[in-house]
Amino acid sequence: MEHTRLGVVQTAITRADPQDVAALSQFGVATIHEAMGRVGLMRPYLRPIYPKAQMCGTAVTVLLQPGDNWMLHVAAEQVQDGDVVVAACTTESEDGFFGELLATSFRARGCRGLVIDGGVRDTADLENMDFPVFSRAINAKGTVKATLGSVNVPVVCANALVRPGDVVVADRDGVVVVPRERATEVAEAAARREANEESKRAQFRVGELGLDLYGMRGPLAELGLRYED
Amino acid sequence: MEHTRLGVVQTAITRADPQDVAALSQFGVATIHEAMGRVGLMRPYLRPIYPKAQMCGTAVTVLLQPGDNWMLHVAAEQVQDGDVVVAACTTESEDGFFGELLATSFRARGCRGLVIDGGVRDTADLENMDFPVFSRAINAKGTVKATLGSVNVPVVCANALVRPGDVVVADRDGVVVVPRERATEVAEAAARREANEESKRAQFRVGELGLDLYGMRGPLAELGLRYED
Amino acid sequence: MEHTRLGVVQTAITRADPQDVAALSQFGVATIHEAMGRVGLMRPYLRPIYPKAQMCGTAVTVLLQPGDNWMLHVAAEQVQDGDVVVAACTTESEDGFFGELLATSFRARGCRGLVIDGGVRDTADLENMDFPVFSRAINAKGTVKATLGSVNVPVVCANALVRPGDVVVADRDGVVVVPRERATEVAEAAARREANEESKRAQFRVGELGLDLYGMRGPLAELGLRYED
Amino acid sequence: MEHTRLGVVQTAITRADPQDVAALSQFGVATIHEAMGRVGLMRPYLRPIYPKAQMCGTAVTVLLQPGDNWMLHVAAEQVQDGDVVVAACTTESEDGFFGELLATSFRARGCRGLVIDGGVRDTADLENMDFPVFSRAINAKGTVKATLGSVNVPVVCANALVRPGDVVVADRDGVVVVPRERATEVAEAAARREANEESKRAQFRVGELGLDLYGMRGPLAELGLRYED
Amino acid sequence: MEHTRLGVVQTAITRADPQDVAALSQFGVATIHEAMGRVGLMRPYLRPIYPKAQMCGTAVTVLLQPGDNWMLHVAAEQVQDGDVVVAACTTESEDGFFGELLATSFRARGCRGLVIDGGVRDTADLENMDFPVFSRAINAKGTVKATLGSVNVPVVCANALVRPGDVVVADRDGVVVVPRERATEVAEAAARREANEESKRAQFRVGELGLDLYGMRGPLAELGLRYED
Amino acid sequence: MEHTRLGVVQTAITRADPQDVAALSQFGVATIHEAMGRVGLMRPYLRPIYPKAQMCGTAVTVLLQPGDNWMLHVAAEQVQDGDVVVAACTTESEDGFFGELLATSFRARGCRGLVIDGGVRDTADLENMDFPVFSRAINAKGTVKATLGSVNVPVVCANALVRPGDVVVADRDGVVVVPRERATEVAEAAARREANEESKRAQFRVGELGLDLYGMRGPLAELGLRYED
Repeated sequence: MEHTRLGVVQTAITRADPQDVAALSQFGVATIHEAMGRVGLMRPYLRPIYPKAQMCGTAVTVLLQPGDNWMLHVAAEQVQDGDVVVAACTTESEDGFFGELLATSFRARGCRGLVIDGGVRDTADLENMDFPVFSRAINAKGTVKATLGSVNVPVVCANALVRPGDVVVADRDGVVVVPRERATEVAEAAARREANEESKRAQFRVGELGLDLYGMRGPLAELGLRYED
Repeated sequence: MEHTRLGVVQTAITRADPQDVAALSQFGVATIHEAMGRVGLMRPYLRPIYPKAQMCGTAVTVLLQPGDNWMLHVAAEQVQDGDVVVAACTTESEDGFFGELLATSFRARGCRGLVIDGGVRDTADLENMDFPVFSRAINAKGTVKATLGSVNVPVVCANALVRPGDVVVADRDGVVVVPRERATEVAEAAARREANEESKRAQFRVGELGLDLYGMRGPLAELGLRYED
Repeated sequence: MEHTRLGVVQTAITRADPQDVAALSQFGVATIHEAMGRVGLMRPYLRPIYPKAQMCGTAVTVLLQPGDNWMLHVAAEQVQDGDVVVAACTTESEDGFFGELLATSFRARGCRGLVIDGGVRDTADLENMDFPVFSRAINAKGTVKATLGSVNVPVVCANALVRPGDVVVADRDGVVVVPRERATEVAEAAARREANEESKRAQFRVGELGLDLYGMRGPLAELGLRYED
Repeated sequence: MEHTRLGVVQTAITRADPQDVAALSQFGVATIHEAMGRVGLMRPYLRPIYPKAQMCGTAVTVLLQPGDNWMLHVAAEQVQDGDVVVAACTTESEDGFFGELLATSFRARGCRGLVIDGGVRDTADLENMDFPVFSRAINAKGTVKATLGSVNVPVVCANALVRPGDVVVADRDGVVVVPRERATEVAEAAARREANEESKRAQFRVGELGLDLYGMRGPLAELGLRYED
Repeated sequence: MEHTRLGVVQTAITRADPQDVAALSQFGVATIHEAMGRVGLMRPYLRPIYPKAQMCGTAVTVLLQPGDNWMLHVAAEQVQDGDVVVAACTTESEDGFFGELLATSFRARGCRGLVIDGGVRDTADLENMDFPVFSRAINAKGTVKATLGSVNVPVVCANALVRPGDVVVADRDGVVVVPRERATEVAEAAARREANEESKRAQFRVGELGLDLYGMRGPLAELGLRYED
Repeated sequence: MEHTRLGVVQTAITRADPQDVAALSQFGVATIHEAMGRVGLMRPYLRPIYPKAQMCGTAVTVLLQPGDNWMLHVAAEQVQDGDVVVAACTTESEDGFFGELLATSFRARGCRGLVIDGGVRDTADLENMDFPVFSRAINAKGTVKATLGSVNVPVVCANALVRPGDVVVADRDGVVVVPRERATEVAEAAARREANEESKRAQFRVGELGLDLYGMRGPLAELGLRYED
């Protein structure tokens, strides 16, 4: 894997297969995270800027400098239909790197949404456009265009590694990254998991207990759980 | 009072009187907290996962281990109609201990909602079910089932002591615990307080000032408040 | 400028011109902050207590003591039609200083909303009244009336200086303070900025890039940005 | 157990046996927490104000109001030789409730130190006096004396329940509360634990592995741990 | 008072009288804050980078951009013997704006120390030089030199207003700002306060209680404090 | 690069060249971060548990589960002379994963220190042993041994990617990761940087200004910086 560097734009990236992206888009983040073997989740401080925000697409990655959104403009040119932009920052910065004008530009390129380890603004407009954004802050403060970052290098965003072309899925429960090589496998595992949950749901609905459904009574007793009255 | 211990389930608990619970359910958390003499409030980092979430019921308490939701399954069996589950954790943990499947199980037992000093997931589903949850985080990350905690021991949740059977009231303003022995008294005090507020509200509406309504001008002057122009 | 002091109420303050306030009320906080030259923004931990909250008015300032809302009652008398109340605190305090009764009183005096570096309660009622509040916390805990603060002295609220009579604009993106002497100038600059953005928006919508619109390619190349494939 | 109330001073409290306190004072907080069965620990945001601070004694409890240290003066009269003061607050407050003058007063009464879910000041003087304090903040801001709290009622401090007379042990690793009825038992368990650790330490020192000492290889393999090269 | 602006250096500032600075340097921050009437304190998240750091001097103010320390170089030229540099930032930024090279430069100009609402690095070197710094973070990450801020405009730093020439006093308890016009008055009040404390200290040392020394028993009883056994 | 997985121990890893490690150990973290091109730094919430803690070595990586330190015992066997252990966690967890017994074991294997995105305990003992630890918390709470994580897979720790065998350098300013393939290059760049700083330091010491040394006056004027008096 290429190292993270500043001052570089990778123009040729390998995106996950569109069919896999379509398959993954049917599942929630919690399901996909389980299906991956419980890795790849971003830290939960990233939150949707409106409750219905959700998205699934292939990552165009951006490495920002604090208080500087220049690289988001550079990234716009690299966006293709079906991409999402994932913007990390070299430091913790909650400035408003992104707003309605950039969203208009991104959407015109086919962008499905943004994950940013920073702040955004024009949030009422973004909700009106239904342009999904997952950010660490909402902040009216704008940014400058003065220092180089990078586009389409591997980045660490909210404690998760994202490489250009990986699949990123986000909903109200969080944001998860599926490495592009694992997309098929994870989509299949997610489907199996969801099928299994459906049967469990029916049993729970009629009052059965997880203690019985999952056979927990034995192991609990073995570890010494005591019932007292 | 019994001490907090790990590895124990108390099956026989004393619940507050249902009439008191019904009475308390008519009031907001802010009113009840005042009526109790300003004690019993959980820390405000607990937030509803959707704006309309609110609930009132008798506590089934749970002491969780970090990243481990086994005891929520154990608790499900102890839930009776009208209960709410109050889940503390032995440490600060924001993992997603609870989701839609457990909510389905809890609801089938008559559970009215959950307070948890941790994270939850499937939040869109929980809102659709109108299953009220008050949590410190929303997090897609699931948990394991490996270590014993306890059910129905006294717990400290978000800095408030909760004993099994106490009344727990939660709305958009926060979460308050009413000891079961004080439920009648607090419901009565809350009613008196609300009646008093109604008359104040009418006076404020027509422009009267708190300075006059509450007779504050004298005490302020005595402490030395100076009006200057 | 007068120094911040405790125990004082200034009854004669100079408010910004109502026409300027009306002009500023047409713009969002992000636009006004840019138009001011990127100063005057409060820290982004202040959040609206409901998504549609927004307001614009002249500041009646309050300096609170922790856990004590007495000065909000004193402030009510100083409020005139078109004012907003800006409440700072001598320390970080997230108690519920303000609720529906005080909102009723403030509204009866013509108050347009509240910015408070503290907590508020009765948030469902406040949303029902459409009384906009921007606060650092939501908290059912009430306050006492025991210690003197001040009204209409200069205060620092969420890291921004506010003098009585300054214009305060707040929406979902944040809270900004416009010194009353600068109100005309800032409103004009905001209008110019918005006009300029409208033309940019149209170009972005049809797929033009910020790289070209803003002439960024040259400066980026000069700083050494490398495109690789 | 008595309920937490405001406006009360309990003058007759039952303290843990001095011999148990002496026994517990020989162990670190981590050891005692294990010996108790992993309950009773305060949240780790409480930190010593100087690295060598440590203490062990019987609790005189205080319930403070935010920004108000009046009850610490009331508590001073209740302090006996060998006590520590444990000060909770009705809300999160980081004001400087305590300084060198109160420490002088407390020490004159035989007080061994302070745990406070709030701030303290005069920290250089407190270190010079070697008066151990465990607090959530250091803050020069003083407090008022205006509102009633309580002394020697049960309090929840940094998420742990403390009753008057319980044993409180604090060192650089944290603060733990031993209920007075469990003091003998916990001291004995701590001694056993420490003896056991001494033999382990010797084995680790010569290069033995916990994998072998604790017999972990089997359980790890059973759960499916794979070694790859 | 001049408004805060970006892109400006004020070269002619009025400094507090050196005799007042010398007088204030004899007192701790807690004492000065009380002597000022309990205003002017910065937020307690500013901490000394080593325990013995302390300083007192006249402020050269700096307004930084996030991740950009250019203005600290501009400020160096404005520093005179006896000054301290107070650096605010237009946003919350914890980058390492300052290190040992700049400290060497500042010291050569007579600078007594730095208060910065941001991060610093080379902290071991700074302690070896005994160059006192009070910061919100320690961070190895360096900054760029790309965007204009200001020097010697009024700034808000850690929620306190600082004008060029004001006296800034900092020690282990925090950082306080004395407006230059109030320096004489505050130094005198601090001296009176310290004299008064000395006599109190002697009485506390022999076991007298604050309850008696400050005549608190009556007011407490009047408010309803109940002693129970 | 291999993907992050749970339940795996890589026994054959490629470590950076010992000569490069020796070369890097001569420089501070701030210098190395600059020499790398300003990438690879962990978030600054990781702090040394005692001021003099510092270390440099090759990474043995660990992926922990919250509240579970089993994998640290598994890691001990993989440690060789000159290694440091870097422990990430699948979630934010501040439990005390590590203490003096494990440090004794690690040291016996030649381990030079620990970086952990979690808590540690026995901190007084660790300082006495001079076993350097960089952690996000100090916490007496111990952990269980119940769930599989991994050893020597790539991990993201405090927002930085670490692969087994990479060089990790930590001191009071922070923690930086040098990819093993870049170790030679970075050590050389660090040496050049330090030589350059030495000459600058001498000039600053005699009062020269960065404005002149770095030729900043022109660029500042060009951007419009105005000097006013």
